[in-house]
Amino acid sequence: PDMGAIAGARDRNAQLTKPPAALGRLEELAIWYAGWRGTDRPEIANPQVIVFAANHGVCAQGVSAFPPEVTAQMVENFQHGGAAVNQLANTFGARMDVHTLDLDLPTQDFTKAPAMSDAEVVLALATGWNAVDPASDVLVAGEMGIGNTTSAAAIAAALFGGAAEDWVGRGTGVDDEGLARKTDVVARGLALHDTSDPLDALRCLGGRELAAMAGAIAAARHHRIPAILDGFICTAAAAVLEKTAEGALDHTVAGHLSDELAHKRLLDALELEPLLALRLRLGEGSGAALALGVLKGAVACHSGMATFAEAGVTDS
Amino acid sequence: PDMGAIAGARDRNAQLTKPPAALGRLEELAIWYAGWRGTDRPEIANPQVIVFAANHGVCAQGVSAFPPEVTAQMVENFQHGGAAVNQLANTFGARMDVHTLDLDLPTQDFTKAPAMSDAEVVLALATGWNAVDPASDVLVAGEMGIGNTTSAAAIAAALFGGAAEDWVGRGTGVDDEGLARKTDVVARGLALHDTSDPLDALRCLGGRELAAMAGAIAAARHHRIPAILDGFICTAAAAVLEKTAEGALDHTVAGHLSDELAHKRLLDALELEPLLALRLRLGEGSGAALALGVLKGAVACHSGMATFAEAGVTDS
Repeated sequence: PDMGAIAGARDRNAQLTKPPAALGRLEELAIWYAGWRGTDRPEIANPQVIVFAANHGVCAQGVSAFPPEVTAQMVENFQHGGAAVNQLANTFGARMDVHTLDLDLPTQDFTKAPAMSDAEVVLALATGWNAVDPASDVLVAGEMGIGNTTSAAAIAAALFGGAAEDWVGRGTGVDDEGLARKTDVVARGLALHDTSDPLDALRCLGGRELAAMAGAIAAARHHRIPAILDGFICTAAAAVLEKTAEGALDHTVAGHLSDELAHKRLLDALELEPLLALRLRLGEGSGAALALGVLKGAVACHSGMATFAEAGVTDS
Repeated sequence: PDMGAIAGARDRNAQLTKPPAALGRLEELAIWYAGWRGTDRPEIANPQVIVFAANHGVCAQGVSAFPPEVTAQMVENFQHGGAAVNQLANTFGARMDVHTLDLDLPTQDFTKAPAMSDAEVVLALATGWNAVDPASDVLVAGEMGIGNTTSAAAIAAALFGGAAEDWVGRGTGVDDEGLARKTDVVARGLALHDTSDPLDALRCLGGRELAAMAGAIAAARHHRIPAILDGFICTAAAAVLEKTAEGALDHTVAGHLSDELAHKRLLDALELEPLLALRLRLGEGSGAALALGVLKGAVACHSGMATFAEAGVTDS
């Protein structure tokens, strides 16, 4: 980030017509945002929501409450504006893009083989990287992929240790039997692959949409575009970057705490404090898109408020 | 609320393209909103933010970090669009109105006399009632009044019991000595007045802007306009209604948990769960205006999403 912009934003914040720190976390958010945008008085004019969709070979193991064809059906729903994330993107003035990643070619079942080859994971990372509009000023990266909480749980376990059951949750709503199956699948995946390298964990246990989110979040860093992390799957993808290079997520903020059980563990491991906690567990970028409203409010206050001097208000 | 609209909204919610309950609290919010608006597919098109401003005789006791003239200065700031709540109202497309209530005539110092006469409190309630646009579809009632956390603490103690120190906090930022003074002032006010009746507690310990907020929230109920409660002061004013008639706040939602210490105690007493907890403690309606973004997102998802049938998505 731009330390000059941060200093300027701190200075401006101290002069705004409010008691010191009375806007709480909104003040920290605005200063953080100013730093990445390189100006002490930034605006949010072009937020971009990108949903990446892909399919998972591990679905053959019965890890989801929904069949894999729902991925493609939901992609159509995104394209026609009918999903939750469409409504939230509209509400907060964000452009929305949908990228499919070889829906007809699921990843390999990671209990039997690496999910992706080197070439496949690189292509997915590049798709994510290239999806980011360099002219945008906030990134929300979301996902759709039946089976991908299983993939995310496996990656989280590979990156942070712990048992499979520490990271496996109910996803879109599997029953107790499905939960036990998911846990077993994740344990078998972890046993099969050597995942000491974060990018190799992504390749062996991940999915194309997870790799694409990681690529998009990395591209946002390159372009100095602050990013809002969504729920468990997005955070697991992002964690690959942080484990690859410490500080790689400094340009991100956790949008919300998902109801997916292990999200709290994952946020704690990354030392991220979510902006919202409203029991969402939908994915698609929906929690992050909702948090975009909070970030817009924070930046609007910071850049739009009068100073004590401008307003002629007595400064205590 | 309209039970038919609630039933219709629940039915619609169950058909939307998402796993059951995956939008968490957003689903509950949308159904609640639908009930008060009397339609299973509501929209938010005309939210109204109203800031009520008044002055407090109890300021003579040194209970605030800011001098009383700041109330009028901040009113000018609201009128010129320079305050935090202006930016938040703009961000979420709300109309904003400012009402001053006899700024040159502070209430009586409640350690010496009732803050208001019968006629004065009725006039303030009526001002609040009349400020609500019947054509609006969400109400945010905010306040500005140097000294009013002292008044709110006294009302809360009168309504819910407990010692003065349970309800007194640092407001805009008093030091330890100021905090001790505030606590003593509240204790003396409680000792002086018989406040077994909630409206009499409002009259004797309140302020014109608190009465106006109560009047506005009551008017919103009359017009079936859902209201978002702001922080400690707004919630204390609203609590007068709940203590007068149980269920009087069923058309409201707690916008946020303020950093003002006793707000949590007050929300717990009213069994309200705040939407946001971002350490705001500014008043002005700012926390509620920020929560308006969440409510807009909830209603947009509910009314804008496609159903499984419309989108051709397999319903698990």
